[in-house]
Amino acid sequence: MIRVAILGATGYTARELIQLLLRHGEVEITAITTRQEDQPDLGSVHPQLAGRLDLPLENLSLEQVAERADCVFSCLPHAASAESVDQILTAGLRVIDFSADFRLHDAAVYEKWYGVDHRAPGRLAEAVYGLPEFFREDIRGAQLVANPGCHPTTAVLAVAPLLKAGLVAADDIIIDSKTGVSGGGRTPQPVFHFPECNESIAPYAVGNHRHTPEIDQVLSDVGGQATQVVFTPHLVPMDRGILATIYARPVGNASENDMMAQLRQQYAAEPFVRVVDHLPATKNTTDTNFCDVSVRVVRGRVLLMSSLDNLIKGASGAAVQNFNLMYGFDETTGLL
Amino acid sequence: MIRVAILGATGYTARELIQLLLRHGEVEITAITTRQEDQPDLGSVHPQLAGRLDLPLENLSLEQVAERADCVFSCLPHAASAESVDQILTAGLRVIDFSADFRLHDAAVYEKWYGVDHRAPGRLAEAVYGLPEFFREDIRGAQLVANPGCHPTTAVLAVAPLLKAGLVAADDIIIDSKTGVSGGGRTPQPVFHFPECNESIAPYAVGNHRHTPEIDQVLSDVGGQATQVVFTPHLVPMDRGILATIYARPVGNASENDMMAQLRQQYAAEPFVRVVDHLPATKNTTDTNFCDVSVRVVRGRVLLMSSLDNLIKGASGAAVQNFNLMYGFDETTGLL
Amino acid sequence: MIRVAILGATGYTARELIQLLLRHGEVEITAITTRQEDQPDLGSVHPQLAGRLDLPLENLSLEQVAERADCVFSCLPHAASAESVDQILTAGLRVIDFSADFRLHDAAVYEKWYGVDHRAPGRLAEAVYGLPEFFREDIRGAQLVANPGCHPTTAVLAVAPLLKAGLVAADDIIIDSKTGVSGGGRTPQPVFHFPECNESIAPYAVGNHRHTPEIDQVLSDVGGQATQVVFTPHLVPMDRGILATIYARPVGNASENDMMAQLRQQYAAEPFVRVVDHLPATKNTTDTNFCDVSVRVVRGRVLLMSSLDNLIKGASGAAVQNFNLMYGFDETTGLL
Amino acid sequence: MIRVAILGATGYTARELIQLLLRHGEVEITAITTRQEDQPDLGSVHPQLAGRLDLPLENLSLEQVAERADCVFSCLPHAASAESVDQILTAGLRVIDFSADFRLHDAAVYEKWYGVDHRAPGRLAEAVYGLPEFFREDIRGAQLVANPGCHPTTAVLAVAPLLKAGLVAADDIIIDSKTGVSGGGRTPQPVFHFPECNESIAPYAVGNHRHTPEIDQVLSDVGGQATQVVFTPHLVPMDRGILATIYARPVGNASENDMMAQLRQQYAAEPFVRVVDHLPATKNTTDTNFCDVSVRVVRGRVLLMSSLDNLIKGASGAAVQNFNLMYGFDETTGLL
Repeated sequence: MIRVAILGATGYTARELIQLLLRHGEVEITAITTRQEDQPDLGSVHPQLAGRLDLPLENLSLEQVAERADCVFSCLPHAASAESVDQILTAGLRVIDFSADFRLHDAAVYEKWYGVDHRAPGRLAEAVYGLPEFFREDIRGAQLVANPGCHPTTAVLAVAPLLKAGLVAADDIIIDSKTGVSGGGRTPQPVFHFPECNESIAPYAVGNHRHTPEIDQVLSDVGGQATQVVFTPHLVPMDRGILATIYARPVGNASENDMMAQLRQQYAAEPFVRVVDHLPATKNTTDTNFCDVSVRVVRGRVLLMSSLDNLIKGASGAAVQNFNLMYGFDETTGLL
Repeated sequence: MIRVAILGATGYTARELIQLLLRHGEVEITAITTRQEDQPDLGSVHPQLAGRLDLPLENLSLEQVAERADCVFSCLPHAASAESVDQILTAGLRVIDFSADFRLHDAAVYEKWYGVDHRAPGRLAEAVYGLPEFFREDIRGAQLVANPGCHPTTAVLAVAPLLKAGLVAADDIIIDSKTGVSGGGRTPQPVFHFPECNESIAPYAVGNHRHTPEIDQVLSDVGGQATQVVFTPHLVPMDRGILATIYARPVGNASENDMMAQLRQQYAAEPFVRVVDHLPATKNTTDTNFCDVSVRVVRGRVLLMSSLDNLIKGASGAAVQNFNLMYGFDETTGLL
Repeated sequence: MIRVAILGATGYTARELIQLLLRHGEVEITAITTRQEDQPDLGSVHPQLAGRLDLPLENLSLEQVAERADCVFSCLPHAASAESVDQILTAGLRVIDFSADFRLHDAAVYEKWYGVDHRAPGRLAEAVYGLPEFFREDIRGAQLVANPGCHPTTAVLAVAPLLKAGLVAADDIIIDSKTGVSGGGRTPQPVFHFPECNESIAPYAVGNHRHTPEIDQVLSDVGGQATQVVFTPHLVPMDRGILATIYARPVGNASENDMMAQLRQQYAAEPFVRVVDHLPATKNTTDTNFCDVSVRVVRGRVLLMSSLDNLIKGASGAAVQNFNLMYGFDETTGLL
Repeated sequence: MIRVAILGATGYTARELIQLLLRHGEVEITAITTRQEDQPDLGSVHPQLAGRLDLPLENLSLEQVAERADCVFSCLPHAASAESVDQILTAGLRVIDFSADFRLHDAAVYEKWYGVDHRAPGRLAEAVYGLPEFFREDIRGAQLVANPGCHPTTAVLAVAPLLKAGLVAADDIIIDSKTGVSGGGRTPQPVFHFPECNESIAPYAVGNHRHTPEIDQVLSDVGGQATQVVFTPHLVPMDRGILATIYARPVGNASENDMMAQLRQQYAAEPFVRVVDHLPATKNTTDTNFCDVSVRVVRGRVLLMSSLDNLIKGASGAAVQNFNLMYGFDETTGLL
């Protein structure tokens, strides 16, 4: 039994994480923390979890957390997370961080896109980017795993294999991404007010979404050459799910079949990436840890499509997958 | 041309009202006011209205409003509205008030259900309840019309004819009402946050919804005997529309056909109530000023169904219908 | 390992059942059948299940099914199911039937409401109604379990405890039920066409829904006196979930607190019924086997509210719960 | 008063058209036809229109239509429409055709993409493409107007001005389009079954959508050089609205401001195209005849965004706008 603590347990990713961990079998949740509220009942914060976990939400110090847990899932917002994670690592625990604080190699890039100073730049070198499909071995031994962003995972799983194989050009990648509203978190805002976003689709954060440098970095790492993408997210009137439609320029003479074959080869042994013949739809991956990918060639342009559940494979499911790797459990434990 | 001002023009009912008035032909909108914001552009507050009305949102005094307009639509929240309306009436204008401040005859009942002192109780006696189907003649001559609540209009239009005709009992009326989310207004709140209310239906304000005494009063007035209803509203994951399902106990031997006939007779000359054979669905009345009603008898219980658009027949359309009556225009002007 | 077969595996309840059974641990799915299609791939029928189960959809004879399985889940439509179930029982297997064919004690009532002859009336006496909260011991030993309808489970779990305890009258029960669209099954029809039912709420099958006699029967059995309800279902624009709002007349002087206490006492040991203080919302029970119930007293009327997921606690989850009872597994196996 | 007939009046575009024409003031609807059904009541086919139009749905011959009307709106499906339109033109009436039959200049292109022979190729030369923003003068005098497709109008209104001005390249245009479900018509199909398409987003018809050659043609005509686009439509879980996100390559040194200025100049006098500073959202154009467009430059790529209501500006509103031009009415009559 691994004892785990969840920091910042009032949001959607924490709710999903608790549901997955309750099904895991090898985990004991020993602490769930909040800074915002005065120790409310978990069932009143997450009515779906009423009666599921007999543990109070607490405003614990990191020392208290360190005494109770072996591993920490941090669902704190960026900046706040870096500070807490630094101390928890110092106390000797292993950490899976949901925030963006340890995803980018370069603190300067982080500070430019997130507009805040990095509070633990000394930890960046040891952080491992938690995308098992490309960094599995590093994850196994990591003390600190930076759990990927939801848009980056969706896009990268589709385009990285072709980029790595040299079948598409690194300098002409357009990612048109569509996400459900839970991706915006739990804080009420006009843009997420039901009568505003229901029955509507719209782009947002055009040209300045913070997942942009993360996608650039991972594709550069995997593909072996500097890559900058055009990334446009859209808000879709549904709870959960991301679909990325990706336009790339082919290199060489690979056919659509060759590209499908490349995807299949890349993911032959992967438990959670399905290379599908049909066109992906977010519904097929809702409430699962699967990512469905496919590829078409249209008028000389490569068109990749990828779908996943932003709260599972795009967040909490990926975290559990990373956890399984870190502790030597079967990678699918709690996830099927 | 009647010059009209709209107080509190940043909400959903004001947006719908402006759209209807722009189509009216006999109205000039001369002032749109806000207290909350610093004279923003109308198109930035209501992007749907971009380019439609060349008039700034202004923080006007009531004196300024009185100079510019003949008639005022007050979309202010309750309590705030009473105070403004009182002064506007004193200045000699006519008023259609969207708030609940002048709907209830008795200030004590108002104060009990709304939890605030009534700020202009002296005006209650002159206020006319703006339900044309039952108070048309009074509305024509009114200085102050209290525009009805959305749930009351939905329920009353279905049950009042049978109550008035003595076909159902006054002491056993259950109203199970279902409303779209725009009924909750424009202010972001957890309960209206998309990932909370989407894909869910739930009751709210059980036993204490403020429309309860309003329904009681109108049914008592129309039916001629004291009536108290059980009223349960529910929030439905859709933008607009209300469906009321009403359960009443029959009096006498009237059949389902007799009851349908009674409804048809009551509404034979009404431009905006349709007695339909099929089961009402909110979609059939969306974006219209119609209310569809029907009746069934099931196992000895009378079952009435009624649907309308909460922002049109339940608010801004009703206001324009009242306006047309007050100024002698054809009652349907701007509404078809 | 219990070997199970699923008859009629192309619909929504079968899809949910497969997902639950894949997580069960003590079950081997050995056959999934279809009559409609020519042995398609499971992943093409249910893309969500792609890669999850290495078993073809087959058009098997009941003899073949009997060779492969110990227990059969029949997801066949009514009438078709009765015929198949009869033969499977004769072959010595145990059966959990999702159809309505064995829910009603009286073939004449069945034939009246369903409009078809009953094809295996001789089996009615041995069928056990699969609502564990009230018929647990009978289910343990049953050869044939009739899995309950989704509306009946929702309503009965709320009102039965108070009826049984004599706190509400049997002759004045109104059930206003609201269901998501998956309850209508998988066959495209105008009423379930997205642009028709989205953004709309409407009653359907008023006065003649087939779940009516089932609710009557179960409440009569549990309450000990003949009971006839007024039952009105409504279609809500969401995928899944049922909310029942139930209006009953109190007997005696029990307070709201007394009624809550009665519910808590009834369900103290139940793993899947949560008596909640807050107002139930379908979202809190989506994708779970829980049913949330609560009670209020409003103006002398008892108001019960109940929510569950129509495809889980209202169908496939209930079936697995019954299966667990029949085979001596922990009742929650595969369901948390 | 112009007497108009509507052929194929049972679909969504006909319903919207009738609503608009009832508000027009200079039109008398004299015939509404159907081939499919036996003269049903209009209110039973379109419950939203109950009581609005006292005219039966009839299975009329084209001779009968020609006697009753001056102008025909054909809402017939492609192929069927060509045949009828040909005869109606011969009878001397003017026609606005909603189908694709007269949109493409070249019958061979039509036959390739639509998979049927063209039934009236001799009429192609006289057909005018009904996009007022680019072909206004031709529309005024036309006997036959081919009303544009919804995706083409959305995309073309955004990209054509920049293409025409030489600010973007003709050989690198990607159109990622997102449409509500009403775009798929009224016939129930699995892909439009609520539980299939709700809470999901997915691409469809990748590489082979029939609007592709139409977009190619119009952009080629307007831009003055042969243009082939990559066009990918997606289905969004909402009733109506299209958002196109368009990626193009800049030519020369025009800045984002220059491109906005070009759009504003192009549309300065247009009543129904709004060049907006904010990011377009479909909700802002729902139930209106407006198209909102804007442009951004992101990492050296031009990103155009465009939204409209697929049933209004993308179909029936455009048809009325064309009608107004053809008959010399103010272009906005019935549309504001």
